[in-house]
Amino acid sequence: MTVTVAVDAMGGDHGPPVTVAAALAFLEAERDAQVILVGIEPTLTEAIGRARSVAKARLTVHACTEVVAMDEPPAEALRKKKDSSMRVAVNLVKDGVAQACVSAGNTGALMAIARFVLKTLPGIDRPAIASQLPTRTGVTTVLDLGANVNCSAAQLVQFAVMGSALVTAVDGIERPTVGLLNIGEEEIKGNDVVKDAAELLRTAPVNFYGNVEGDDIYKGTTDVVVCDGFVGNVALKVTEGLVVMLYDFLRAEFTRNIARKLAAVAAMPALGAFKKRVDPRRYNGATLVGLRGVVVKSHGSTDSIGFRHAIAKAHAEAVNGVLDKIAREIAKMPAPARAATVPLSAVGGDAR
Amino acid sequence: MTVTVAVDAMGGDHGPPVTVAAALAFLEAERDAQVILVGIEPTLTEAIGRARSVAKARLTVHACTEVVAMDEPPAEALRKKKDSSMRVAVNLVKDGVAQACVSAGNTGALMAIARFVLKTLPGIDRPAIASQLPTRTGVTTVLDLGANVNCSAAQLVQFAVMGSALVTAVDGIERPTVGLLNIGEEEIKGNDVVKDAAELLRTAPVNFYGNVEGDDIYKGTTDVVVCDGFVGNVALKVTEGLVVMLYDFLRAEFTRNIARKLAAVAAMPALGAFKKRVDPRRYNGATLVGLRGVVVKSHGSTDSIGFRHAIAKAHAEAVNGVLDKIAREIAKMPAPARAATVPLSAVGGDAR
Repeated sequence: MTVTVAVDAMGGDHGPPVTVAAALAFLEAERDAQVILVGIEPTLTEAIGRARSVAKARLTVHACTEVVAMDEPPAEALRKKKDSSMRVAVNLVKDGVAQACVSAGNTGALMAIARFVLKTLPGIDRPAIASQLPTRTGVTTVLDLGANVNCSAAQLVQFAVMGSALVTAVDGIERPTVGLLNIGEEEIKGNDVVKDAAELLRTAPVNFYGNVEGDDIYKGTTDVVVCDGFVGNVALKVTEGLVVMLYDFLRAEFTRNIARKLAAVAAMPALGAFKKRVDPRRYNGATLVGLRGVVVKSHGSTDSIGFRHAIAKAHAEAVNGVLDKIAREIAKMPAPARAATVPLSAVGGDAR
Repeated sequence: MTVTVAVDAMGGDHGPPVTVAAALAFLEAERDAQVILVGIEPTLTEAIGRARSVAKARLTVHACTEVVAMDEPPAEALRKKKDSSMRVAVNLVKDGVAQACVSAGNTGALMAIARFVLKTLPGIDRPAIASQLPTRTGVTTVLDLGANVNCSAAQLVQFAVMGSALVTAVDGIERPTVGLLNIGEEEIKGNDVVKDAAELLRTAPVNFYGNVEGDDIYKGTTDVVVCDGFVGNVALKVTEGLVVMLYDFLRAEFTRNIARKLAAVAAMPALGAFKKRVDPRRYNGATLVGLRGVVVKSHGSTDSIGFRHAIAKAHAEAVNGVLDKIAREIAKMPAPARAATVPLSAVGGDAR
């Protein structure tokens, strides 16, 4: 079956110059895929017109009239921008026209819109943003990366359940280990919410490893790391800043003088392989897990290579039936692990 | 004047093998300094006996009978272990026998003991752990790194005041810029405590830059970054884990085959300089700021090179009169920025 990905062509810091190039590069690599670009006309069609690609045949344009601003309050985007590129892309998933959607736009607005339009899976209050980060031994799935701040202990338990289901669905790992991000391994450490969450996780239907610390993410100590969205977002942004700084330092050392520059030529294959391995664009594309539809969030400032990875991630999740697998995994969990229903009026309330 | 540093010889993961070697290496480099090693006999004297160093003459041993365990609740360490190596080292500062002290032991216990024995500066509720992290352009002072979790907005403002005073005292920067660690630059982002803190910081007697994100730490966007100890500790540990992982990746690329190994020989000067620049041991030693005495916390798992850096940091702060300078800077702040007194019974309450 051909899988169609709806792409918010206007989202992110760059809009069509990045999203169109990424969509075409993705289609050239995935010969069976289709992409619907949702955006403002004639801007979007003009951007496509400038591109040269045989893959244009599998690209269609869906015109809309509005764009959600990067700093727009999510509740306003939800209430007032019913014909935004973001909203229309999510609607295409709901209507079954597309099997997945991608946006590099305002995270809070995407969360609020996706939750309102697609609804959450049974037992899930609010979706979380999950991403695979590279580790010394493979990958670790970390959630939440910024959708939910001021999380309750019960929400952290739901993240554990969703993260487990996601890892089982994507990587085929049965009973993945779940670590709770804390500031020490001892039970007495941490803030009140984390202490309560650890207590709940001990009897939750997940393979709870215990507390982990920030360095355990990159050690790959557990398959899943669970945290509040504030903490997760800081961890992610610290990672981004540090990788850029270290790469700058490395470049500085290899350009310090003529001898170093000559050494850099010899070292190029190794340095190039290293750069490729740590390239954050390869890890671009975070899953909004817990929804009744595949929604992938791209980094707002990524380029066309990074955005292409996000489209590919959305496509792969749809092709592999990840959504059904997650729903099945969550349904297996005993009822107490699942949440009480939260009124929809709370949508977007703390995702800002 | 000769400055004496009291060293908790038993603290940390390794104890005397690391602390004795570090103290001797430090004394060899600082010809005017003195060190008092506080520890259990005969273990400590035996460890010193095995070492060969002309600096032994400036090393004295102060025997004690107890050690605070790494996982001991701080309140218990405070109440029951009055002759611990940590407590005695802090006492030596209080009594004026030493001008600074260093411990690689239990962070919560060190906080509780230092606060109880030395007391905080006027207007400061609780000390914070501050450390300089390297940035693309210099260094950024980040606090709190793990002493205080569940911080109030008022506490974050105190951290801003203390961090500013520390940077002015150590680096001579007048009106250092202060960033509030958040998950977006927009005012609507973040959790409630951070939003309230931003409001308070706008009228606080510091040079408030506004919200910053995790990547701004390594960009060096501001001189000071303020955050809750939970978030700060995660940021620090993520950094540690990521540096180790990236260095592993780099080594793997340079040992993949014969050609790569030959390239590594040519690249050795550059790689060595890079490794040295990012070596976390160089940044070891965090200041417990806000106390009426110089207390430096070393990473628990560091080796003698890292621990030596922590001793050198404590020594430099004492030599440079950082404590008086901080006290002067904080006293300059208008009263509303300073805190209401908190009962001492709260000591160690949330540092665990």
